[in-house]
Amino acid sequence: MADFIAQPPAPRIRLGMVGGGQGAFIGGVHRMAARLDGHFNLVAGALSSTPEKALASGQELGLAADRIYTSFEDMARRESERVDGIEAVSIVTPNHMHFAAAEAFLNRRVSVICDKPVTNTLTEAKRLHDIASRSGASFILTHNYSGYPMIRQAREMVANGELGAVRVVQAQYAQGWLSERVEQSGAKQAEWRTDPARAGAGGSIGDIGTHAYHLAAFVTGLKAESLAADLTTFVPGRTLDDNAHILLRYKGGARGMIWTSQVAVGKENDLRLAVHGEEGSLEWAQEDPNKLWHTPQAESTRLVTRGGPAAGESATRVTRIPAGHPEGYLEGFATIYSEAAAIIRARQNGVPVSPDVLAPTTEDGIAGVAFIEACVQSSQRDAAWVRL
Amino acid sequence: MADFIAQPPAPRIRLGMVGGGQGAFIGGVHRMAARLDGHFNLVAGALSSTPEKALASGQELGLAADRIYTSFEDMARRESERVDGIEAVSIVTPNHMHFAAAEAFLNRRVSVICDKPVTNTLTEAKRLHDIASRSGASFILTHNYSGYPMIRQAREMVANGELGAVRVVQAQYAQGWLSERVEQSGAKQAEWRTDPARAGAGGSIGDIGTHAYHLAAFVTGLKAESLAADLTTFVPGRTLDDNAHILLRYKGGARGMIWTSQVAVGKENDLRLAVHGEEGSLEWAQEDPNKLWHTPQAESTRLVTRGGPAAGESATRVTRIPAGHPEGYLEGFATIYSEAAAIIRARQNGVPVSPDVLAPTTEDGIAGVAFIEACVQSSQRDAAWVRL
Amino acid sequence: MADFIAQPPAPRIRLGMVGGGQGAFIGGVHRMAARLDGHFNLVAGALSSTPEKALASGQELGLAADRIYTSFEDMARRESERVDGIEAVSIVTPNHMHFAAAEAFLNRRVSVICDKPVTNTLTEAKRLHDIASRSGASFILTHNYSGYPMIRQAREMVANGELGAVRVVQAQYAQGWLSERVEQSGAKQAEWRTDPARAGAGGSIGDIGTHAYHLAAFVTGLKAESLAADLTTFVPGRTLDDNAHILLRYKGGARGMIWTSQVAVGKENDLRLAVHGEEGSLEWAQEDPNKLWHTPQAESTRLVTRGGPAAGESATRVTRIPAGHPEGYLEGFATIYSEAAAIIRARQNGVPVSPDVLAPTTEDGIAGVAFIEACVQSSQRDAAWVRL
Amino acid sequence: MADFIAQPPAPRIRLGMVGGGQGAFIGGVHRMAARLDGHFNLVAGALSSTPEKALASGQELGLAADRIYTSFEDMARRESERVDGIEAVSIVTPNHMHFAAAEAFLNRRVSVICDKPVTNTLTEAKRLHDIASRSGASFILTHNYSGYPMIRQAREMVANGELGAVRVVQAQYAQGWLSERVEQSGAKQAEWRTDPARAGAGGSIGDIGTHAYHLAAFVTGLKAESLAADLTTFVPGRTLDDNAHILLRYKGGARGMIWTSQVAVGKENDLRLAVHGEEGSLEWAQEDPNKLWHTPQAESTRLVTRGGPAAGESATRVTRIPAGHPEGYLEGFATIYSEAAAIIRARQNGVPVSPDVLAPTTEDGIAGVAFIEACVQSSQRDAAWVRL
Repeated sequence: MADFIAQPPAPRIRLGMVGGGQGAFIGGVHRMAARLDGHFNLVAGALSSTPEKALASGQELGLAADRIYTSFEDMARRESERVDGIEAVSIVTPNHMHFAAAEAFLNRRVSVICDKPVTNTLTEAKRLHDIASRSGASFILTHNYSGYPMIRQAREMVANGELGAVRVVQAQYAQGWLSERVEQSGAKQAEWRTDPARAGAGGSIGDIGTHAYHLAAFVTGLKAESLAADLTTFVPGRTLDDNAHILLRYKGGARGMIWTSQVAVGKENDLRLAVHGEEGSLEWAQEDPNKLWHTPQAESTRLVTRGGPAAGESATRVTRIPAGHPEGYLEGFATIYSEAAAIIRARQNGVPVSPDVLAPTTEDGIAGVAFIEACVQSSQRDAAWVRL
Repeated sequence: MADFIAQPPAPRIRLGMVGGGQGAFIGGVHRMAARLDGHFNLVAGALSSTPEKALASGQELGLAADRIYTSFEDMARRESERVDGIEAVSIVTPNHMHFAAAEAFLNRRVSVICDKPVTNTLTEAKRLHDIASRSGASFILTHNYSGYPMIRQAREMVANGELGAVRVVQAQYAQGWLSERVEQSGAKQAEWRTDPARAGAGGSIGDIGTHAYHLAAFVTGLKAESLAADLTTFVPGRTLDDNAHILLRYKGGARGMIWTSQVAVGKENDLRLAVHGEEGSLEWAQEDPNKLWHTPQAESTRLVTRGGPAAGESATRVTRIPAGHPEGYLEGFATIYSEAAAIIRARQNGVPVSPDVLAPTTEDGIAGVAFIEACVQSSQRDAAWVRL
Repeated sequence: MADFIAQPPAPRIRLGMVGGGQGAFIGGVHRMAARLDGHFNLVAGALSSTPEKALASGQELGLAADRIYTSFEDMARRESERVDGIEAVSIVTPNHMHFAAAEAFLNRRVSVICDKPVTNTLTEAKRLHDIASRSGASFILTHNYSGYPMIRQAREMVANGELGAVRVVQAQYAQGWLSERVEQSGAKQAEWRTDPARAGAGGSIGDIGTHAYHLAAFVTGLKAESLAADLTTFVPGRTLDDNAHILLRYKGGARGMIWTSQVAVGKENDLRLAVHGEEGSLEWAQEDPNKLWHTPQAESTRLVTRGGPAAGESATRVTRIPAGHPEGYLEGFATIYSEAAAIIRARQNGVPVSPDVLAPTTEDGIAGVAFIEACVQSSQRDAAWVRL
Repeated sequence: MADFIAQPPAPRIRLGMVGGGQGAFIGGVHRMAARLDGHFNLVAGALSSTPEKALASGQELGLAADRIYTSFEDMARRESERVDGIEAVSIVTPNHMHFAAAEAFLNRRVSVICDKPVTNTLTEAKRLHDIASRSGASFILTHNYSGYPMIRQAREMVANGELGAVRVVQAQYAQGWLSERVEQSGAKQAEWRTDPARAGAGGSIGDIGTHAYHLAAFVTGLKAESLAADLTTFVPGRTLDDNAHILLRYKGGARGMIWTSQVAVGKENDLRLAVHGEEGSLEWAQEDPNKLWHTPQAESTRLVTRGGPAAGESATRVTRIPAGHPEGYLEGFATIYSEAAAIIRARQNGVPVSPDVLAPTTEDGIAGVAFIEACVQSSQRDAAWVRL
C-alpha cells in the first residue's frame, strides 16, 4: 500500500494559496488534500482581494501576518524574495483568474497547482503551457478524479490490454444543483459558474464536462479526433449551457458519448465512465469510487475493489488503507497533491520524475479548453462535427 | 392488485401462432406470456415452414393435428372457415415476414399480436396501419417493456405532472452478445438479426433501439422532432450497426440521448431510462424492474416499489403479486397479452376499450420504423439532424 | 435453457384446488404458477366453504358447474369417481386445514401440491408423511424459493465443493407488513397468520422462518442439530411471535443464524442467504433473485447471473429466458409446479423421477414443523438449546 | 457544512504517538486522521520499543531527534518537562499496552486518544476510567465509525423520535481476512489479534464486535441488559473466536443480534447496522457510508445522503464536502480527532465542551470490555444469557 505516501515527507513543501478565502468552497478542499498526506505546509496566502477578508481568512488558517497578502502579484513578488518563500502555490480562484496568477508564480519558479479548466481560452491555455515549459517550475492541474485508485486501476487494465481494443466509451457527469436559477439567490458557487466573464465559454461542459472528458482520455489513452455537441440552456435567463449531449470519435475508430448536466434533479455528482473493448468492459461511478466492475469476454462480471485481490500496482501505489474501508473524494484529491509533491521534489533534487507519478499537466489543460471550444463551436453549427 | 387479471378469463381467446417452432426463442416467450394470466388458449400454429418441424413443434405443444399448418396463408384461410377458428394470432417470425402474415390475418378479421419492429420498411408499416384500421380486428405490437408496472408508474407520474416539464431523457439499451461474430458460428438468433434481408435496415437500432425509443415516448408522452445518429459497425464482416449513439430533440424543447449497443461486453439486457424534469426525476433499469427511483426537487430520492406504498393506480392495475416478490420479464410481457385480451374482447363485445388499457399499436410500429430509417439516414449524412 | 419446460406438456395434468377463492391471495399465485409452463389444467375446485363464494370463484375461473365444490371431502370423493377426475390437487388453505385435505386426496391417489408449513403440528406432519408414503400418489410442498435458478445454482456450487466445507450460514426473512396490528382492521392475510388456531404455534417463524430454514438446508445440504431461539411479540395484543432471533448448530460444526421479522418497517420480502465456506462464499437476496454473488478465496467477487456465463446445469435446467431479462417469483413458483408435473408423470408412467427434479416433500414438511416446535420450546426455556 | 472544521485550528495541538512505527497499520491511519482537519501537529513519538526502528520511524515522520523516544514512560516524563511538551498523545499499540501507556500520560495531564478496545480486562478499564476522571486531562476512545456523518444522522433521527420506539437492532461486522491461518505466515496484524496475551479474551468480538456493539448503542441510545453468545473458532490451531453469533436484549424490550466474523470469505469490512422502530427503520453499511436508508412507516424508502436535502444538523456539522463527493473512512476517523481537539481545547480554555461534540470515552471503553467478557462467559456456558 501507498509507498509514496510513506516516503519521508519531511521537510514539507512550503505552499501558498491564491483564492480560497472565507465562503469559498474549493480552497478548503485543496487545503485538506494538501494536509492529508503531510507533504505540504500552507505558509502564505492571497486568499481574497478584499483586505479584511484576506486577513481574517489567513489568521483563521494560522498564517503569519506578514504572509497574508491581498494580491497574488504581491505574494509572488515578496515570497520569491524570502529565503523561506513558498515553493508551490495552489490557485483556486474562478477560472478567469487562473492564467494571470499562474504566470506570475511560474515566472518566479514557483510551482503551480491549479484548478481546472486551466484557463478561459485556448489561446491562454497554450501560452500558459509555453510559460510553464520554460519556467523551471512544475504545473499540476487538479483533474482530481484521476487520483482515485480504481481509476488508476482501470487505466492500468486498459494499458495492459485486458480489454482489447477499445470500441465504446460512455461517460457522464450529472448534477442537479443548477436545476433552478440559484445564481439569482446568492449561491456564490453558482454565480461565477454561470457567468461567462468568469467561467468562460462553457457552463456544464467546462465545470464538469472537462472532468468527464479528461477521465475518458486518462483511462483509455485514446485521443479524440472530433466531436458533435448539442448544448442546451434549460433554465430561463441563464447564458451558458446547463446540459450537453456530446458525440465523440476517437482516433482508431472508437466512439464515445458524454452527457453533462447540471439540471438533472436528484443527481449529486454522478460522474460515470464505462469502457467497452473487444475483450472486456469496465464500469466505474464516482459516487461509489472504491469499486470497479470488470467483465472479461464470456465470463462473469467481477468486482475489483480498492485494496482487494485484483488491485494492480498503479492502484495499490495510491491506496492508503486496506480494502473495505472506503477512501473518498478527499483522498483522491490528496493523491494529486502527493503526486505534485513528488514532481516538485524531483525537480528540486534534479532527478527525473518516476514514471509511476501521474498528474495532469498544461497539456491536459489545453485539451480541456479545446474540448470546451469545440463543443461551443459544434453546438453553434447545429451539432456538426468539429475536429479537435 | 391486478383487477384486470382477476376478471373472468373464461372463455379463453382462441390463439394461433406464426413462427416460434423448435429452436426459436421469442415464440416460447409469447406462449408463456399468453398462458400466465389465462386469457388465451393456443389452438393452432404455423410454427415453421419446414413441414416436419411444424408438425413436431405443434405436437409438442399439444395442438390438434388438423390445426398444425406449414404456412400462415393456409392457417389464415382454414382457421377463418372454422366455427371455432382462432380469434387472434401471434406473429413471432423474423421482422421481414411480419407484414405479409399480419395482412393475411387482419384481412380475415383475426386480431394480430405482433413482435417488433412492426415491419422492415416505413412504407409497409404505414400500409399495415391502414389495413389494420379497416380490418375490424385489432393489432397489438409487443413493445413488452411497456408492460412493466414501474414503467406504468413512471408514465402516470409524468402525466400527473410530478416531474414538471421534462427537460432531458436519457435512454440506453446495451447488450454484449454480438461483441464477436457469433452469426458465423450458428447462433440462429444472431443470424437473422444481422442480416439486412430479414432484419431490415437497422441492426442494434432496430432490435433494441426501437424498444428504448418507444419506452422514452411511452413514459414521457413526448414526441421526437428530429434526431442525429452515429451508427457504427464494430465487428468486422457485419453489415448492420452494432452500436449507435443518437441525439434527440423533442417537441417543446426537451433533449434526449439514446445509446444502443450489442458489443458492450458484459451487458445482458441493460435497458435504462432516466427522465429529468423541472420538478423531479425518475430512473428505471430493466434488469431491476420492480424499482423506480424518484427524486422530487430538493428532496431525498425515494424508492418506489411495485406494490409498495407509493404505487399508483396504473401500476397497481398490472401488478399480480405483492411488493417484494419480484415480477419479471415474463410478467411484463404477459401484461401486453392481457391488454390484448381486453382489447379483443371489447371489440367482440362491441364496447369501447377502457382507457386504462395500454398496448402499443401500428402507430407505435410506424414510429419505430421511422426511427430506424431516420437513424440510418442521419448516419449516412455524418450524423446530421433528420426530422421525424 | 429449460429443457424440462419444453418437454411435451400435452396432455396437461388435470388439477383441482382447495382454497383460493375470491379474496384469497396465495391461490391466485398457485394458479399463475400452474399455468405458466403449461403442465396443468385447472378443472375443479373447492375454493371456499361458503357456497356462494365457491360458485362465484369457480365460475370466474371457468370451471364447469359440476366441478365446483363446497367441501374438499366432496371434491375428493366425486372427482375420484370420474374418469376424467383430477390427477393432482393444490391445497392453498390456511395451515390448519392442510392435513385433513391432503389426507383426503392422498387416500384417493390424487397427488397433492400443498402450501407450507405442511401441518400445524409435528404429529400431523409425521402422520401425513406416512399417509403419503403409502398412498401411491405424490406430495409436493411449495417451498417455492427453492425454485429460483440462482438457488439451484448455489446448491450445485456447494455440492460441487466450490465453497469447501461450510462454516457459517446467515439467513434472514424480514417483512414489515405486521408492524402494526393490522389483523384488527380487516386484513384477511394477517388475521389467520396471527391466529394460533389457524396458523399453529409459529407466527413469523412459521410463516416465513420455515422458508429461510428450508432454503439454508436446501442450498448447503447441512442438517441442523440444535437451535436456540429468542421469539418476541412486539405488537401489543398479538399472541404469536412477530420477530425471532435463532442460533443454529449444524452437524459437522457449521454455525448459523436466522432472523425473521414481520415488524421490520420498510421490508417487503427481504429473504437473504449467505453461505461462508473454507474456500469461498455465496450471497443471494430474494428481491434481486437473478444474481448470485460468489467470492472464491483470495479472488474478486463475481456476479453469477441467471443465464450468464457461469450458470451451471441445475440453474440452466430451470431457466426460461436468457440472461438480463429477469425471472421473478412467479417463475420460481412455476418451477415447483413443473417439478411437480415431472414427478406426477413419472409415477403415472411407472418410471423413476429424474434425479434432476428437485421438489420439497413431506420430509421437508416435517423438518419445517420440527423447526417451529423447537423454536417455541427453546424460547419458552429462555433460548436454551433444543435438539432437532 | 462543518463549522467546527473551519474553526481556527491555529495554534495546533502538540501531539505525540505511542506505537505506530514502520510496518504498523493503524498508526498511519491515526496520523492521516490527525492531519486532515489541521488541528494537530505530531511532534513526538515512542513509535517502537526497538531503538533503531523508533529512530527510523521518527525521522521519516520529521520528528526532532530529541523527541524520538523508545519508551512511552520516557516520553511521558520528558515531554511533561518541556514547555512545548505534547498536549495529547495517540496510543496505537496492541490492546494489552493501552492501559499502562494511558495511565502514564493521564497522570501527567496529557490527554489521551486511544485505540479500542480500551484495555484487555474490565478491571483495567474501570481503573483507567478512574484515572482519567481524576487526571485533569481528557480521554478519547477511537470508535471511529461513530464519526461517519450518516451515523450521526441516524443517531439524531432516533433521538428525535423519527423511528418511534426501537424494537429490533441488527448489526454485523464481517471480514474474511482470517479465514486461513495467516497468523502463521507472518501477517503482523493477524499475529497479535489472534494472541490472547496481546489481544485479550476476545478475537473477532474484541477486534470488530466491539465496534458493532458500540455503534448500535451510539445510534439507538439503548442499553443492553443481557446477551447470549455462541463463539466459534473455525480455523484450526487458533485460540480466540473468529466468528460469533450474539443475541441481545435491551432495556425496555428491544432485541438485537450481532454477527461478527473474520472467516467470511470475500468480506472486507462489512459493518452494517439496521434499526427497526415502531414508526420507521434505518439501514446503513460502512462500505457505502455516505448513504442512509430511511423508511417511515407506510411510506417509500428514502435515500438520505451526506450533504443531501434530508441531512440534519449533527451530520452537517461533521461534513467536509458537499453531497455526491464521497467522504470515507479517514474522514470519519478524522472527525474523532477533531472532536478530540474540541474537547482538549475546551479543557485548556476552561469552558464546557459543546454538547454537539461526540466522542467515545472511558465509559464506552468499559462497555466494550464488558461486552467482550460477557460474550466469553456466555459462550463458555453454552450461550446462556449473561447480564451486562
